[in-house]
Amino acid sequence: MTLKIGVIGTGAIGEDHIRRCMQALSGAEIVAVTDVNLDRAREVAGKYAPGVKVPDDGESLIALPEVEAVIVTSWGGTHARYVLEAIRHKKYVFCEKPLATTAEDCLKIVEAEAAYGRRLVQVGFMRPYDTGYRALKSLIDKGEIGEVLMIHAAHRNQRVGANYKTDMGITDTLIHELDVFRWMLGDDYVSAQVIFPRSSSKAMAHIRDPQIVLLETKKGIRIDVEIFVNCQYGYDIKCAVVGELGEASLPMPPAVELRKSAALSTEIMTDWKERFIAAYDVELQDFINGVKADALNGATSWDGYCASVAADACVRAQETGQIEKIDMTARPSLYGG
Amino acid sequence: MTLKIGVIGTGAIGEDHIRRCMQALSGAEIVAVTDVNLDRAREVAGKYAPGVKVPDDGESLIALPEVEAVIVTSWGGTHARYVLEAIRHKKYVFCEKPLATTAEDCLKIVEAEAAYGRRLVQVGFMRPYDTGYRALKSLIDKGEIGEVLMIHAAHRNQRVGANYKTDMGITDTLIHELDVFRWMLGDDYVSAQVIFPRSSSKAMAHIRDPQIVLLETKKGIRIDVEIFVNCQYGYDIKCAVVGELGEASLPMPPAVELRKSAALSTEIMTDWKERFIAAYDVELQDFINGVKADALNGATSWDGYCASVAADACVRAQETGQIEKIDMTARPSLYGG
Amino acid sequence: MTLKIGVIGTGAIGEDHIRRCMQALSGAEIVAVTDVNLDRAREVAGKYAPGVKVPDDGESLIALPEVEAVIVTSWGGTHARYVLEAIRHKKYVFCEKPLATTAEDCLKIVEAEAAYGRRLVQVGFMRPYDTGYRALKSLIDKGEIGEVLMIHAAHRNQRVGANYKTDMGITDTLIHELDVFRWMLGDDYVSAQVIFPRSSSKAMAHIRDPQIVLLETKKGIRIDVEIFVNCQYGYDIKCAVVGELGEASLPMPPAVELRKSAALSTEIMTDWKERFIAAYDVELQDFINGVKADALNGATSWDGYCASVAADACVRAQETGQIEKIDMTARPSLYGG
Amino acid sequence: MTLKIGVIGTGAIGEDHIRRCMQALSGAEIVAVTDVNLDRAREVAGKYAPGVKVPDDGESLIALPEVEAVIVTSWGGTHARYVLEAIRHKKYVFCEKPLATTAEDCLKIVEAEAAYGRRLVQVGFMRPYDTGYRALKSLIDKGEIGEVLMIHAAHRNQRVGANYKTDMGITDTLIHELDVFRWMLGDDYVSAQVIFPRSSSKAMAHIRDPQIVLLETKKGIRIDVEIFVNCQYGYDIKCAVVGELGEASLPMPPAVELRKSAALSTEIMTDWKERFIAAYDVELQDFINGVKADALNGATSWDGYCASVAADACVRAQETGQIEKIDMTARPSLYGG
Repeated sequence: MTLKIGVIGTGAIGEDHIRRCMQALSGAEIVAVTDVNLDRAREVAGKYAPGVKVPDDGESLIALPEVEAVIVTSWGGTHARYVLEAIRHKKYVFCEKPLATTAEDCLKIVEAEAAYGRRLVQVGFMRPYDTGYRALKSLIDKGEIGEVLMIHAAHRNQRVGANYKTDMGITDTLIHELDVFRWMLGDDYVSAQVIFPRSSSKAMAHIRDPQIVLLETKKGIRIDVEIFVNCQYGYDIKCAVVGELGEASLPMPPAVELRKSAALSTEIMTDWKERFIAAYDVELQDFINGVKADALNGATSWDGYCASVAADACVRAQETGQIEKIDMTARPSLYGG
Repeated sequence: MTLKIGVIGTGAIGEDHIRRCMQALSGAEIVAVTDVNLDRAREVAGKYAPGVKVPDDGESLIALPEVEAVIVTSWGGTHARYVLEAIRHKKYVFCEKPLATTAEDCLKIVEAEAAYGRRLVQVGFMRPYDTGYRALKSLIDKGEIGEVLMIHAAHRNQRVGANYKTDMGITDTLIHELDVFRWMLGDDYVSAQVIFPRSSSKAMAHIRDPQIVLLETKKGIRIDVEIFVNCQYGYDIKCAVVGELGEASLPMPPAVELRKSAALSTEIMTDWKERFIAAYDVELQDFINGVKADALNGATSWDGYCASVAADACVRAQETGQIEKIDMTARPSLYGG
Repeated sequence: MTLKIGVIGTGAIGEDHIRRCMQALSGAEIVAVTDVNLDRAREVAGKYAPGVKVPDDGESLIALPEVEAVIVTSWGGTHARYVLEAIRHKKYVFCEKPLATTAEDCLKIVEAEAAYGRRLVQVGFMRPYDTGYRALKSLIDKGEIGEVLMIHAAHRNQRVGANYKTDMGITDTLIHELDVFRWMLGDDYVSAQVIFPRSSSKAMAHIRDPQIVLLETKKGIRIDVEIFVNCQYGYDIKCAVVGELGEASLPMPPAVELRKSAALSTEIMTDWKERFIAAYDVELQDFINGVKADALNGATSWDGYCASVAADACVRAQETGQIEKIDMTARPSLYGG
Repeated sequence: MTLKIGVIGTGAIGEDHIRRCMQALSGAEIVAVTDVNLDRAREVAGKYAPGVKVPDDGESLIALPEVEAVIVTSWGGTHARYVLEAIRHKKYVFCEKPLATTAEDCLKIVEAEAAYGRRLVQVGFMRPYDTGYRALKSLIDKGEIGEVLMIHAAHRNQRVGANYKTDMGITDTLIHELDVFRWMLGDDYVSAQVIFPRSSSKAMAHIRDPQIVLLETKKGIRIDVEIFVNCQYGYDIKCAVVGELGEASLPMPPAVELRKSAALSTEIMTDWKERFIAAYDVELQDFINGVKADALNGATSWDGYCASVAADACVRAQETGQIEKIDMTARPSLYGG
C-alpha cells in the first residue's frame, strides 16, 4: 500500500521532500512532479524518481488519477490556489508554511476544508515534530512545572541575506514560534507588542535587528521572543517555559564536549537546515501514515490561519509601537471549536 | 592601623556585618554599636565585641571621637538621617541599601557629599562584588561580545512572606538588578514598563507575581527582568547579556553534579542569604581598605540615587501599565558628571 | 528496486528489525521469516508482513530464490551456521552481534568470506551509527585533540536479571565498547586486565559488579572501562577521549533542562533500548543501501572476530587477575591487512 | 587576642601566607620571619609586616617567646627539622606539604606529637578546605550515593618545567589526591599500580606523561587517577565518586557561559594557583581559629605520614610495573587509632 504522491514545486525544499519520500521514508513514492520551471522539475525528477510524470502545472498534477496526495512546495504566493484545488479534488495535501500569504486566503482554505467536513490539509510546521519540543510539551502536559505563566524564547540566525526586511523577522522567522507555542500551550494569542533595541552594527542598515516580540495569550501567559537574525555566532533556538512549580527549557542539540585551549566547549550549529533535520523526516512520515490511516495529526489549516493572524498583528505592532490586538474568527467545529 | 567602626542597627544584617568585621575580615574592629532597641544592641555587642560602647542613639555613636567609620544597618526609613549626620562629621559611612527611601532624600545625600567635595559614602549593593558578575563585566569590557544590545534576566525567590506587596517586587527585589546593570553597562535608564502575566496560584492573593520589567537605557539597550518571588523551586538569579557578537551568561553557583534516580542534577539554593555570601565579605573588606586608602570603590550615593529614581518609575509603571520615563537630575562632577 | 529480505529469528530484536524494514526504512521489504518457534515466526509475520513465506528453518529460508539478503537474529549459538550458509549461497547477511560465540567460529566466517573474495557480512554493532560516536570520531579524525592517548569510559545499566553472570559483563556489555573503540581509534588491542572493586550490595550475590577493564592498544593507548550493570540510577554510557591537545566526550542524549524542587536536572534514560534507537535505524538502512550498492560499510566479520578475541582475553583476565595478551591472527587483505 | 605567628621560609608560598595573615584573614599577625636568604626575608617583611623581627634561622624564630605559632614554608628538606623543633617548644605549627620528604621523618613527627599527647601540627593540604570537595564529601557522608565503590579522577596541568621528573607526578602532583581521597573516604590505601600510556609528544622526552595510578583501599574501593601534566589545555581537576546509588562529581569552578563563534563555552583556568585560592584562605583561617581554640581541624601529621607512605608505594609501582602494597605502621590513639 505505497502512497502515491505528487509534488508541486521543486525548489530546495521540494527537492528535499522528494528525496525524503524516495530514499528515507517508508510507504510512499513520488509519481508526479511539476514546477513553474519545468526543466527544473524534470531535472529533480530524473535525480530521485526517474520516469515519473511531469505535468505542465499544479492543477494538472492534482487532477492526475494516480496522485493520491499532494505536497505543495511552490512559491508562497501560490500555496492557497493549490491547496484549495486539492481540497476540491478531495485529495490530501501537505503544504509547506505559510499556508497562504494572507489571513484571508488561510481562512478560505479553512472554510473549504470545514465545508468538506474532514481534514485534508497538513501545514508544514515541523517544530512540533522535533524531539526537544515534544519532550518539553510532554513534561508540561504531565504537570511537571504546574500551570504555565511565561515563556522566554529566542530565535537567532547567524546572518541573513540582503533581501531580508524587518517584517520578515515576523513572517519568516517568528512564524515558527507563533505556531509551536500555540501547539505547546493549547492556547491562543490575544495581543502583541514589538520592542526594538538598538540595532546591531553587523546587521544591514535597512533593517532593525534584533527585535523583541511580546505576546499575551487568552490564559494570560506572557511570552517574550528575541528575534536576532544577525547574531553572528550561530543558529540558536531557545525556549524556557516558566510554570508555577519550575522552569523547563528546550534542550540544545547534542554535541561533543571539548576541553581544549583553556575552554570547555560544545559546538553551536550555524546552518539552520541541520537544526530540525530529523523533525522534517518525522513530519513527512507522519503525513504519509496519517493519509493512510485517514487521520492527519500535524498542523491544521486552522493552525495555519491562526499563525497568519498573529503574524499580521506583530507586523502592525512593529509599525505602531503599540500593543496590537489579535482577533481570530470563530473556530469551526472541525478544529475543536 | 586597625579601622575603628561603629554600627547603627543590630538586626540580622547589622549583626552579620559585626561578625564579619570581628571574625572574618582584616584590618577593622567594632568599637561601638547601637540600635533602636538598646538591649538588642548590648546582646549583639556581647556576642561579638564584648566591652564596646553602646551609645543611646546613632547620632551619639557617630559623634564618638574613636569612631572612624560608620556602618548604617538600621531600618531603611532612618538611613538618610544617619548618613547625612556622618557626612556632617566628615566620617566615612557604609549604608546598607536603600540609601534612602525616597529619591529626594537620596539627592540630599548626594548634594551634601558633593558639597563636601570628596566621597564619604558607600552604598551596600553587593552584587558588583560577586565573582560571577565581575567575570561577566570583565568579559563585556574586553569586547568579547561586542556592543551590548539586550539583557535577559530573572530574579526568583522560592517564596516570600505575607507582608510582601507587589511594589516590593521593585523596591526590595528588582533594586539589585537596577544597580548591578548600571554598573555592568556603564549606562543609565530612560524608561520602564511593567507587564503582569497571570499570577501564580502559589502566590498570596493580594500580590501580582510574577511580573516582567522592561527597561530601556540611553544607549538603546533593552532589558527584560522577570521578577518571580514565589517560584517554589529556589533562589535563582539569571542574567544573559546579548551583544553584537554573542551572549554571555552569569554562572550558576558551583554545585556537585549528581547522577541518581534517573536524573543528572545539581542543587539550586533556596536561601538567598547563601547566594551572595562571599560577595558581602569582599564588599565590606573593600570598604575597610577604601577608607584606609581614602579612596572608596563601591556604589556611590549617586548610584543609590539613580537606583531610587529608576525604582520609582518602575512602581509608577506597575500602576499605569504605561511606559514611564526615568529622568535623573544632572550628575555632579564628583561622580564623573 | 526494493531489496527482498529474509529474517531468521523472530525474538525481540528480530521483530524489531522486521518492523523497521516494513514501517520505518526505505527500499526494503521482508519476504520470508522463520524461527526455531514457527508459531512465533507466523505471529510476527502476521503482524508486520502478512502473507510472507515462513519456511521450516534458516537453511530453507536462505535457499529461497526470492531472498536477496538475510538478517540473522536467532540465538547466538546458531549465528555462525546461518552466516556461513548465507556466504555459501553468496547472499548478503546482516548478523546481530555476536558474529559467533567463539573466536574459532568467527574465524571460520572470516575465512569463508575472504575465500569468496568480497564482503557479504555485516555485523550488528550499532554504536558506530550513533550520531554521538560519529561526531566524536569525526573530531578525533580532524586532529582536534591531537594524537589519542587514553580513553576513560563507563557502561552502566540500571540493573540486570538473575541470569546475568560476571563474564557477561564482558560478552554482553563490554562487547559494544570493544567494537566501537577499535572503530573510533583505528587501532587493535594487545592486552587486557580486569579489576574488581568491592561489589555493590544492590547486585546479586553471585556476580562481581562493578568491574573495571583496562585495555592497551598497539599504539600504546590506554583504555579504562567501568562496567556497572546494577548502578541503580539509569542506563548511562560515558566515553571521554584524551589526546595530546585536549579531551573530547561523548554527548549525553538531549533532555529537557528542568528547574524544580531545588534542583536543576535532566532526565537520564533507564531503558537501554531507547539510548541507541536511532542508530539501529541508520545501521539497517545503511545495510540495505550497502547491499544495493554492492558495498557494505558497517562492521565486518573481521571486526566481529577481533571483538571476540578481545572478549576472550578479558574473560581470562577476570579469572587470572593478570594482564592477558590479546593475539589476533593475520588480517586477510579483504579487510585491509 | 591576636595570634602572633612566625614564618620560616619566605619564598612564593611563604610570602603569600604572610600577605594572607596581614591583609586577608582575621585574628592573626606576623611577628617574625626568617629565610635561608635573610635579605629575602627582610624584603618580604618590609612589604607586609614592616618592623617585625628577622632572626637568623628557623630555630631562633621558633624560640622567640612572642611567637605563639609557626608557619613552615621553607624548602621541603627542612620541614621535619622545624616541625620537630616547634613540637619541642610545644608550639603550634602549620607545615606546608610535604610534612617531610621521607616517610621515616614523617613518622618521627607523628611519634613526637603523639608523645606530647596533643595535636600541635597541621599539614598544608588545602583541598579539604575547597568548597567543591567539601560539598562532595558532605553528599557522600549523607549517604546520597550509598556506599562508595570507585573514584575516577584526573589531575591535569597545562604544562610543567624542564626540571619536572616522572616521579614528581606522584610526589608533587598526585600527593594532593592521595590526601584528599583519604579525607573524603575515611579510608586507607592498601595497594598501588601505575600504568603508562604512550607519552604525549608535547611532554619533555625525559618524562613519562601521562600516567594512570590505580589505588585500592581497605574497604575495596578502587581509584584511578590520570596524572597528565602537559595536557596543554589548562589546569583541570576531575573527581567522580561512584557509589551504589549514583555518581557525584566535583564541580568545575564557576565561569561565564559564552555563546560565540559557533561555540558554547566556559573558560578553563590555566594557572593552578587560582584554582584553590579561596581554599588557602579558609585553611589558614581555620588554623588560626584552631590554635586559639586549642583544637586543630586540618590534616594531621598522621595524614602527612600516610600520604608519604602511599606516595612511596606509587613511586615503586612506577619502577616495577607491579602492584605494590601500601603498609602503614599502627595508628597512634591520638589520631583515632
